Amino acid sequence: MARIAFQLKLREGAAEAYDAAHCTVWPEMLALLARSGIREYSIFRRDQLLFLYMHVVDFEQAWSKIEHDPVNQRWQAEMAQFFEPVTELRPGERFPMMQEVFYMP
Amino acid sequence: MARIAFQLKLREGAAEAYDAAHCTVWPEMLALLARSGIREYSIFRRDQLLFLYMHVVDFEQAWSKIEHDPVNQRWQAEMAQFFEPVTELRPGERFPMMQEVFYMP
Repeated sequence: MARIAFQLKLREGAAEAYDAAHCTVWPEMLALLARSGIREYSIFRRDQLLFLYMHVVDFEQAWSKIEHDPVNQRWQAEMAQFFEPVTELRPGERFPMMQEVFYMP
Repeated sequence: MARIAFQLKLREGAAEAYDAAHCTVWPEMLALLARSGIREYSIFRRDQLLFLYMHVVDFEQAWSKIEHDPVNQRWQAEMAQFFEPVTELRPGERFPMMQEVFYMP
């Protein structure tokens, strides 16, 4: 399993509603994530900044599967209102990915 | 074990040297972290932004122990050159801590 992290930003004033939505993630969305091989998935927030961390064998493969699933499409349609547009993607990126520069088991 | 995350910022131009230092963290620094109960410690970086993630039973207790150890003091003295000053601490914080708003095992 690889350790994967990326960052996202919330719109000003969206934090409370974003947190509330993530207390009650739909069971079918959790099932899709689990079925796609996502484990140990945490989302951390400070003010508008989100840090998303997970374990997965192949992130690109897993997220391609998630992205095309109608459950995720409905979920993302509800979440879209909370996010700042992502402006600094690099070629080939679907999210602003972070590089692991240190790891200690 | 709690899942803990916080963020830090590097000075412009310091990323390469910071990454290099974290490829060769001193064995005595790794031993201090392990002895203090830190596990699954990852540092992720994108440009100047760092996300630090770890498992620990009691972060405040563990970091108080680490902070007072001369090995850590020597390590931090070497690392200090790489960091932007932290300007947005809240009362009682030693780092800009992030709150976990979602978790899926």
